[in-house]
Amino acid sequence: MTATKLPQHISHQFDNELEDIRARVLEMGGMVEEHLNKAIEALVQGNPGLAEIAASNDFKVNAMEVAIDRACAEILARRQPAASDLRLVLAITRIITDLERVGDESKKIARVVIRLTETEGPKAYYVGVVNIGRHVQTNLHDALNALARMDASAALGIARKDHSVDLEYDAIMRQLITYMMEDPRSITRVLDAAWAVKSLERIGDHASNICESIIYLVEGKDIRHKSYEVTDPSEEELGVENSS
Amino acid sequence: MTATKLPQHISHQFDNELEDIRARVLEMGGMVEEHLNKAIEALVQGNPGLAEIAASNDFKVNAMEVAIDRACAEILARRQPAASDLRLVLAITRIITDLERVGDESKKIARVVIRLTETEGPKAYYVGVVNIGRHVQTNLHDALNALARMDASAALGIARKDHSVDLEYDAIMRQLITYMMEDPRSITRVLDAAWAVKSLERIGDHASNICESIIYLVEGKDIRHKSYEVTDPSEEELGVENSS
Repeated sequence: MTATKLPQHISHQFDNELEDIRARVLEMGGMVEEHLNKAIEALVQGNPGLAEIAASNDFKVNAMEVAIDRACAEILARRQPAASDLRLVLAITRIITDLERVGDESKKIARVVIRLTETEGPKAYYVGVVNIGRHVQTNLHDALNALARMDASAALGIARKDHSVDLEYDAIMRQLITYMMEDPRSITRVLDAAWAVKSLERIGDHASNICESIIYLVEGKDIRHKSYEVTDPSEEELGVENSS
Repeated sequence: MTATKLPQHISHQFDNELEDIRARVLEMGGMVEEHLNKAIEALVQGNPGLAEIAASNDFKVNAMEVAIDRACAEILARRQPAASDLRLVLAITRIITDLERVGDESKKIARVVIRLTETEGPKAYYVGVVNIGRHVQTNLHDALNALARMDASAALGIARKDHSVDLEYDAIMRQLITYMMEDPRSITRVLDAAWAVKSLERIGDHASNICESIIYLVEGKDIRHKSYEVTDPSEEELGVENSS
């Protein structure tokens, strides 16, 4: 495993500051993950109250984003970090943007769940939504673990898995269209489910973005917009070391 | 008008570097705007070839994002900017993320237009899509102008207008649902139009985000997640000076 440690500085205060923002990002990640989990559980259980908790707490995620962003700007201004410290700060400013958007999408999902579950019991099309939801939950969880361990190799593996979320997205969308065609009265409700699926697909994208930021942080390589789904020869080119 | 100039430095080289990244962001903005315009024109004219041009050039936008981001990281490492210079660099790293996503959404719209126009002539529901498209085009254009002039007051005005895009979005979605209900065979195609509308709504959000970054850049205030749609008392609180 290529878990990496933060480098040590002569100024312990600076070490503490970097460790502090890293801890806060992980805390923010944990909160975002919890909201997503609540929204999905609410759909599984048909529990609008649980979805309400997820939707109503998104403001805390937003506040964390603003606070961490400010802390990053302060570190840049006062400490003028270089090399890997600079990359850490820059990666964190990107990661919190992605986390904030995961929070937004989770809130949207929670609102859909409130609309869907307040008036009816679970429907067949919920199953597909929950399946892609579980998939995305896992990717987000693993991305946050890779961040905690600063593991670029794991991050690359998770980013590659986003492709299968996209395939699942296409399949469930086709299925939802057949439900709408069979019963046009259900269109509004099935469309709500489709929005939730769309949000989940986006959360998958954000989890991927977070992985790209981890790779940038650890390896100093910008792999955005490169097709890293392909399985082998590019790996070396991307500069990501194999884990062992 | 509160058009602001970049501060001058003792190092002319540093001035040039800052001016250079600013110019490149504006160039990237112009390219993104052009792709959006082409995608919308393609829908108006029923011209899939035009949409193809927009879709196939998105890779240039992605390359610009990566290059500008690298230039920003280099400036942070070598120049250790403070105060307004630091805000400029940080704002630019945010703005290019939003621009890149506008590029992605424009590409998605272009692909929908290709699917819609290759097989049929203009339909009634295109009108609604084009209307919200024009609205969003204007907001993006105005946001980029505010960026060119570093005009925080104009930026706040544009950000506030995003609310009306959201209202328009709700109205057209309702309308699209009625089309689907009337003719279930049209569901797949109308749903395609709905995805395009969703992308346009997101582009409106990104234009708003860019405006927030302009305000941060010029005034040093982070107004994200604040409800600045309300018309007056908050204005002073947001620290945005009135234009005159």
